Amino acid sequence: MAIHPIDYRYGSEEMRRIFEEESKLQKLLEVEAALARAHAKLGNIPEEAAKEISKKASTKYVKLERVKEIEAEINHDLMAVVLALAEVCGEAGKYVHLGATSNDIIDTATALQFKEALAIVERDLEELKNILLERAEEYIDIVCVGRTHGQHAVPTTYGLKFAIFAMEIKRHLERLREMKKRLLVGQMTGAVGTQASFGDKGIEIQELVMKDLGLGKVEVSNQLIQRDRYAECFALLALISATLDKMGREIRNLMRTEIAEVAEPFREDKQVGSSTMPHKRNPINSEKVCGLARIIKSNVFVALENVSLEHERDLTNSSPERCIIPESFVLLDEILKTMKKVMKGLKIFPENVEKNLMLTKGLNLAEAVMIELTKKGMSRQKAHELLRRLSIKAFEENKGLKEVLLESKEVRAYLSEEDIERVTNPKNYIGTAIEQVRRILEEEKKSSRS
Amino acid sequence: MAIHPIDYRYGSEEMRRIFEEESKLQKLLEVEAALARAHAKLGNIPEEAAKEISKKASTKYVKLERVKEIEAEINHDLMAVVLALAEVCGEAGKYVHLGATSNDIIDTATALQFKEALAIVERDLEELKNILLERAEEYIDIVCVGRTHGQHAVPTTYGLKFAIFAMEIKRHLERLREMKKRLLVGQMTGAVGTQASFGDKGIEIQELVMKDLGLGKVEVSNQLIQRDRYAECFALLALISATLDKMGREIRNLMRTEIAEVAEPFREDKQVGSSTMPHKRNPINSEKVCGLARIIKSNVFVALENVSLEHERDLTNSSPERCIIPESFVLLDEILKTMKKVMKGLKIFPENVEKNLMLTKGLNLAEAVMIELTKKGMSRQKAHELLRRLSIKAFEENKGLKEVLLESKEVRAYLSEEDIERVTNPKNYIGTAIEQVRRILEEEKKSSRS
Amino acid sequence: MAIHPIDYRYGSEEMRRIFEEESKLQKLLEVEAALARAHAKLGNIPEEAAKEISKKASTKYVKLERVKEIEAEINHDLMAVVLALAEVCGEAGKYVHLGATSNDIIDTATALQFKEALAIVERDLEELKNILLERAEEYIDIVCVGRTHGQHAVPTTYGLKFAIFAMEIKRHLERLREMKKRLLVGQMTGAVGTQASFGDKGIEIQELVMKDLGLGKVEVSNQLIQRDRYAECFALLALISATLDKMGREIRNLMRTEIAEVAEPFREDKQVGSSTMPHKRNPINSEKVCGLARIIKSNVFVALENVSLEHERDLTNSSPERCIIPESFVLLDEILKTMKKVMKGLKIFPENVEKNLMLTKGLNLAEAVMIELTKKGMSRQKAHELLRRLSIKAFEENKGLKEVLLESKEVRAYLSEEDIERVTNPKNYIGTAIEQVRRILEEEKKSSRS
Amino acid sequence: MAIHPIDYRYGSEEMRRIFEEESKLQKLLEVEAALARAHAKLGNIPEEAAKEISKKASTKYVKLERVKEIEAEINHDLMAVVLALAEVCGEAGKYVHLGATSNDIIDTATALQFKEALAIVERDLEELKNILLERAEEYIDIVCVGRTHGQHAVPTTYGLKFAIFAMEIKRHLERLREMKKRLLVGQMTGAVGTQASFGDKGIEIQELVMKDLGLGKVEVSNQLIQRDRYAECFALLALISATLDKMGREIRNLMRTEIAEVAEPFREDKQVGSSTMPHKRNPINSEKVCGLARIIKSNVFVALENVSLEHERDLTNSSPERCIIPESFVLLDEILKTMKKVMKGLKIFPENVEKNLMLTKGLNLAEAVMIELTKKGMSRQKAHELLRRLSIKAFEENKGLKEVLLESKEVRAYLSEEDIERVTNPKNYIGTAIEQVRRILEEEKKSSRS
Repeated sequence: MAIHPIDYRYGSEEMRRIFEEESKLQKLLEVEAALARAHAKLGNIPEEAAKEISKKASTKYVKLERVKEIEAEINHDLMAVVLALAEVCGEAGKYVHLGATSNDIIDTATALQFKEALAIVERDLEELKNILLERAEEYIDIVCVGRTHGQHAVPTTYGLKFAIFAMEIKRHLERLREMKKRLLVGQMTGAVGTQASFGDKGIEIQELVMKDLGLGKVEVSNQLIQRDRYAECFALLALISATLDKMGREIRNLMRTEIAEVAEPFREDKQVGSSTMPHKRNPINSEKVCGLARIIKSNVFVALENVSLEHERDLTNSSPERCIIPESFVLLDEILKTMKKVMKGLKIFPENVEKNLMLTKGLNLAEAVMIELTKKGMSRQKAHELLRRLSIKAFEENKGLKEVLLESKEVRAYLSEEDIERVTNPKNYIGTAIEQVRRILEEEKKSSRS
Repeated sequence: MAIHPIDYRYGSEEMRRIFEEESKLQKLLEVEAALARAHAKLGNIPEEAAKEISKKASTKYVKLERVKEIEAEINHDLMAVVLALAEVCGEAGKYVHLGATSNDIIDTATALQFKEALAIVERDLEELKNILLERAEEYIDIVCVGRTHGQHAVPTTYGLKFAIFAMEIKRHLERLREMKKRLLVGQMTGAVGTQASFGDKGIEIQELVMKDLGLGKVEVSNQLIQRDRYAECFALLALISATLDKMGREIRNLMRTEIAEVAEPFREDKQVGSSTMPHKRNPINSEKVCGLARIIKSNVFVALENVSLEHERDLTNSSPERCIIPESFVLLDEILKTMKKVMKGLKIFPENVEKNLMLTKGLNLAEAVMIELTKKGMSRQKAHELLRRLSIKAFEENKGLKEVLLESKEVRAYLSEEDIERVTNPKNYIGTAIEQVRRILEEEKKSSRS
Repeated sequence: MAIHPIDYRYGSEEMRRIFEEESKLQKLLEVEAALARAHAKLGNIPEEAAKEISKKASTKYVKLERVKEIEAEINHDLMAVVLALAEVCGEAGKYVHLGATSNDIIDTATALQFKEALAIVERDLEELKNILLERAEEYIDIVCVGRTHGQHAVPTTYGLKFAIFAMEIKRHLERLREMKKRLLVGQMTGAVGTQASFGDKGIEIQELVMKDLGLGKVEVSNQLIQRDRYAECFALLALISATLDKMGREIRNLMRTEIAEVAEPFREDKQVGSSTMPHKRNPINSEKVCGLARIIKSNVFVALENVSLEHERDLTNSSPERCIIPESFVLLDEILKTMKKVMKGLKIFPENVEKNLMLTKGLNLAEAVMIELTKKGMSRQKAHELLRRLSIKAFEENKGLKEVLLESKEVRAYLSEEDIERVTNPKNYIGTAIEQVRRILEEEKKSSRS
Repeated sequence: MAIHPIDYRYGSEEMRRIFEEESKLQKLLEVEAALARAHAKLGNIPEEAAKEISKKASTKYVKLERVKEIEAEINHDLMAVVLALAEVCGEAGKYVHLGATSNDIIDTATALQFKEALAIVERDLEELKNILLERAEEYIDIVCVGRTHGQHAVPTTYGLKFAIFAMEIKRHLERLREMKKRLLVGQMTGAVGTQASFGDKGIEIQELVMKDLGLGKVEVSNQLIQRDRYAECFALLALISATLDKMGREIRNLMRTEIAEVAEPFREDKQVGSSTMPHKRNPINSEKVCGLARIIKSNVFVALENVSLEHERDLTNSSPERCIIPESFVLLDEILKTMKKVMKGLKIFPENVEKNLMLTKGLNLAEAVMIELTKKGMSRQKAHELLRRLSIKAFEENKGLKEVLLESKEVRAYLSEEDIERVTNPKNYIGTAIEQVRRILEEEKKSSRS
């Protein structure tokens, strides 16, 4: 019966399937088959045997149940696979696993799993980036209040917010693509890396097998593929989840009842927001993203400890990898797809955006006025001090900045009423926000066309 | 199909059962039943209704399948339990969950799970401590070489090694027992902690429910039991696993081919040590312990991040707790029981212990000679310098320390041949090692009798 | 020149002093002196020598500079201290460090540092708890909106918020006090734990030294005090900082411009809130608390890895402990004192509290109405469904809940106008919030008197 | 007085200098100067003013002491720098910091620090890789026993061991070089990313400043450079330290008294190996590497949490970055240089390598015999079973494998005495180990020439 939520609750079908026991078995069998074909090509075993092994190297013939039965008997998981494959191959069975050590098969099969899983992550990242760019384009000129330290600052735009997210996802794609050449490698190096069990053709065998499987190969190794390669991958998954956490946190904060500028998509017919407060729109998707990101981040430590194996290998990496490989990929899959859904269906409430933008009655535009005053000839230090004083006055008397400016002789010596009107309109103080986003949109469209 | 190894590979039946979906459901139902009984006792609902609810609050009546069906409909897991319970209670159904908020039920049910899980951990720790004390007693006078920095140092005893482990486990028991009063608490505090939904009898209701369930109660809370309580628990599980990691590492090192002082129990008839090296005795149990300990340690970070929830609660703790609660308990269960087995069946090879003890031909007894020389009147600094010189001589000429001492006029001016014989016998240089262990054994026997 | 901010920016004088190189030296000397006194008491060395050593075991006589000079020569830090002490003791110098191994002195000296540092933490926690209780008392009946998922929920009180924090700090005090017996221990166990270098009086020597220094003692050990004791301490410091992080996050959120219910104390004359926005009240203290908490939490990982030392010790704990011991204590000191200051001087803005409480126009009181309706005889399920409908109506038509209730025939069949008036006043729906806090205040006053 | 060891103990002069308060100040000033030059180029300020600012933007003129004085006054660190620079620039002072927000300057200055620090890391990695390749070449044909699970396995070579390390360092270099384009970027984006304070020339200003400083630029940003860029860097530093930990652990294990195949370089004249055991050769350098690596790894957690900042920025990243940026770089510097020294001066003891290689009397060559038997016609399964039996026999009767093989009729039916002689010589069973290393050496020489 299910215990861990990646077994019954989290992750898409496509991602979970990769890490099911049966899929793992299928990959192991594929590597054994590729090995047999390589041996045949080099004349080490009969062509017919390789064909038979290739044919039977499938969970259609080699049943998970049978493998488990043998494992219970001999207490060695990979050897159980070898025996189970051998026994369905008849005469050819004796050519199974020739020269390989368990981890040649296991680590190469894991590389095949990584390849499939990363392809899904890459596609989802690409889609998320595009959704974010769509939002950036859609909201390119929606001016909202900027917030630093949780406090209102000068205005910004929703376009900029989403473009920042999109570019961060783009960096993750870049990292992922650069990483592949290091992670998606297999090995046929024998018990300690010398390939002694392959005779003198070890180097050729490794090349043939990996080419067959569509993987890169290690330049040199011992019993295991070195785990810095894996740790880099877990670090990247954690980095991505840190970004998703940031996006989730942004949505949660912008959904606060007092702010209410956006809302997650919500199925009004079905979903119970709260058992006692039926009107609530809880950001449960974003909260889930922030929550599960914690686990993906913490798994980095496991992966880092797994790097430091002794001599030609110890086994301490094995049991934790059984846990963290599926866990990190399935949970990232869950939160990546969740975030795609949230960003795709995100609702925005322009009237609340506007209301918040004006909440401090222009106090957040002091900077704009200061700049205008210096343009008109006031010294910068004086303008700074003046605005500081007027801002505090406005704040304490609960007046608008415009009102206070209009009343100030010092200001009026430099600025006309129209000047003040213009300079206290937040929409006139967004600098190059639109231009920056426009450039990004163009750049991305260009590069997606190419 | 299974993905995470706590679902098919790790953990005992007794521990895994606690965290299965159905067990969780059963606990939730028990809390609902206790709540109904409390309401009845205070006259809020009919006695009969409480009886009916108590009877039906069981997975015999409330099927997991049905709960999932409702959840799929309404997208709220606890409310689905409430509705599923209500619908099998007939008329009494309307009295289910009265005044409670979802997390009153969930967190209280989790406390019940913690209680069962900790009872198993406590019992296993107690047993492991006793096994270690047995080993300490059995090996109380087996003198072996001490090793610091991986280098041979003065002698110690196997008794001391095991007594140190036993006392560390004892400290964990102490910590666990002190923690219970903080962790094993439930709450009935309503949506934000005010108990408003319970009318004016909230305080009494909470008391009645927790007394009924055998739990402590929060003094004050909001929608959630504060997560410092959980984080303390995860920190303790990590501390315990760090100790098991230390023990596993010790076994692995003492099993090294070059050292070979001990061996894990091994089923010679069945187990394949290695597919290519049938004679190998790999410390696979200890390696598994060291490996899985990494995950339990990394989960502390998740638990620490879960402490910092916003306002009266946010949901970010929920999804990661679904993962780390079963994971940390089931994996600790796996490695604790594994270590019990290893320590119970540990083989020791006295001839190798002896061989290693003499490996540096007495060089590790320079300290003993130095002390003897100062006792006999040589200045400490002079003795230190002399032994330093003689040790280097012995080391470089590959002689025994005894030999070098016998040749040294400076030494012979103070020590007779018998003196040298005695002082270079490692078994005469173990100080109070036996006495210390004896005291501990007596102390522990006394306290276990009381 | 300073690089790490605990050397020039963070931490109080009293805490930083404990971890300065010179203070560390002073503690090492004190342990050497206590050891000499123990030897004298047992007749191992002349009484006079112990007196001389005790007198000179001070940084007044043993200069840090001289110790560093010797260390540069011999490359061994503790032996440099021993030689520097011996050389100022004249004849008595030869009795310094008798029988001890370096770590007997180092670990015992560290226990003395822990003792001083924990005393400061304990006092600050106690003070913070009392400040929080003062706030709880002061704000006992200030009703505010409860927030779950960042969304408005039923009302709660500021008194409850602060009482929850206070009780969490109380639990930390409890943990700290329970931990002391495990952490504040020294050892005199020689190179590998056998006390061989102390002759047959090792057990007595250890007892005398620790009694002299006011420390507990290990029951058994090897070259090091076992690091589970330290890891527990780092876990506790992390737990405390997780709570401070929670408190800091609460302040930051309640200070948001849109919420503005509280403010950190602020020196208006001096502090520049922002270089471009002089009116801003940034929660910089709370942000610092949240930021530095991350480091204290991450150090747990280091402390957990330090537990697993090989054989009778390896040195891998040494270099990281030089970093994390001062870092975690000094940074915790910084954020604990900062949080005391914030909570002591916290400003509250009742008009904003009130405004937020009414923001959803009573929608957050649907639960209260539902309960009232069931009290008056409507079935619970019907009341739930009715309120769900009316809430959505109110929300969509932007009306107050009261208004919608008054218009609803179904409601009016059960509730009079006065009923509706009463039941939609949030101050009538805070359950036992005041009573719960009152009980805690009484309990705490009682226990602080005893 | 110094507290944290990066202030007095760890790190090279070149690395520590980068992170000293004064160097940080110097970088901040350089960014302000570049900004002034950009403004002048665009005609925003007089050319003369930019010249004056450029001249005075140096700690020669702007004293750290003065900056601290101002900071104490105004409680804002960057504004203190601005004022201190302005006051030494006379009339030109008013053109300092025009349009910039504090973090434009701070984050850009940090990028300059990263650039210098990474250059040192890159050079040291390159040197370490070359040292490892030298070792690989020197030991290319030194055959030693392979060890898996700490148990003897088939033979390998020291050349292979070092080549594996070298290639792992090479991967780190690759990662570092790929990362630079993401990390070494500055920004001039104003308070929230819109560049509003720069008027309409923000995009040009940013380009000019970054070109001037030799940095890349953000495509889009808010108040801060997005911290996924930093987190990637900390993850890489942790990955590198995990590899160094692995190398340190390998040295420590190979130096064990029972193994003694290698030794760290050791100054016999000076260094005290142990206060009580003068002959010891403790792997203190490698132990330090393993110890400090823990801190660099744990800092990843902090960096990951720093990614998730709220809205246009919060301040929680600031205080922890003050700690972890210098800490991770200085400690990595310490262990990277230490490992270079260790690997450069590593001693190898061929007689011990040989002794260990023969320790199991050929048992580790069962695989080789098995393969030979199958080559000669025995079925693989039969050969496996036969060797399994003979190995156990040899092991139990403490005979050499050769002896047992010679006695076995089943074996002799296939193998001659010479066959057995040849096949039980470990030096004949190292597969392509030498060839693999040779290829790598050639490849690396080629690429270093290009």
